[in-house]
Order: sequence, then C-alpha cells, then structure tokens
Amino acid sequence: MTSSDLQEQLNLKALNLLQEDADKIQKLIEVQMENLATRYCPLYEEVLDTQMYGFSRQVDYAVRVGLIQESTGKQILNKLERNLALLYEAMNNKE
Amino acid sequence: MTSSDLQEQLNLKALNLLQEDADKIQKLIEVQMENLATRYCPLYEEVLDTQMYGFSRQVDYAVRVGLIQESTGKQILNKLERNLALLYEAMNNKE
Repeated sequence: MTSSDLQEQLNLKALNLLQEDADKIQKLIEVQMENLATRYCPLYEEVLDTQMYGFSRQVDYAVRVGLIQESTGKQILNKLERNLALLYEAMNNKE
Repeated sequence: MTSSDLQEQLNLKALNLLQEDADKIQKLIEVQMENLATRYCPLYEEVLDTQMYGFSRQVDYAVRVGLIQESTGKQILNKLERNLALLYEAMNNKE
C-alpha cells in the first residue's frame, strides 16, 4: 500500500466513524421529536447537550490530526445543531 | 514517504495531541489543588468532569480509528482519573 492509499483509507475510516456517531445523536433527536406528545423526558436536553459536546470534541480532534477537513467537520456539526435547535423549539412550544 | 512512515507519523501526532489535552486537564487539577485553601470554586468539579468526558471521547475515537493502542489510551485516562480522585478527596476533606 502506498502512503497516499493509507492516508485515504484512514481519512475515510475517520469520517465514517464520525458519521456513525452523528447518526446516533440524530437518532436520539428523532426519538425525542416523536415522543414529544406522549412521554417527555426532561433529562433528554442534558443528555443531548453532553453528547453534542463529546462529539464536537471528536470532530475537532479529527481536524487537528488532519484526518478530515475543517469544513467537513463544521458541516456535520452544523447539521446536527440545526436539528437539535428544531427539537428544542418544538419542546418549548409544547410547554 | 512509505505508508509505514506515514502511519508512524500520524500515530505520533495523534498521541501528542491527546497528551497536550491531558496536560491541560492536569493543569486545571493542579490549579484547583493549589487554591483549595484560598479560593474554592464550586463550579470546578463540573468543569473538570465535562473536560474529562470530552477527553475520554477523543481517546476512544483515536483508538477506534486505530491511531493509538487501547492500552495507551487507558493509561492516559487512568492517570488523569487518579489525580482527579485525589483532588476530589482533598476537596471533601476541606468541607
């Protein structure tokens, strides 16, 4: 394997792992969205904020190691943050 | 550069960045230890716990990408956790 093959392979793995983690958070957001009307859990907001913090640290680290582009990292984070904002808006409207 | 040179270089960078972050948390622990007698800040515990969580996510991610050995990651985390436990013990004895 050449070094550029390896770099490509590592970058892809780094990105796929981040995407997996982002999907898990997205799933948490969706579950809470679906359950807004039925069983609201007040701890959800804290859990999601903690998850987002941990995830943003992973993204930041991947950028610093040079495994993903800064813009790619921002894109993944922004998408999750937008969906999270929508959830919080829906939660506030419920109150 | 060969692929094994690249791997070695990335592994070293990944580890150095983790060590830098660990040093920052260690510094926070030391500052609070020194200030136990004078200006105790109750938010310190929460800040440190959050920092530790974010850091453990980074370490976990580095292991999953294959940049560091699982045992190395555990070693770095355990050292910090031990020092943190000493700090909390000292804080409790103060109360």
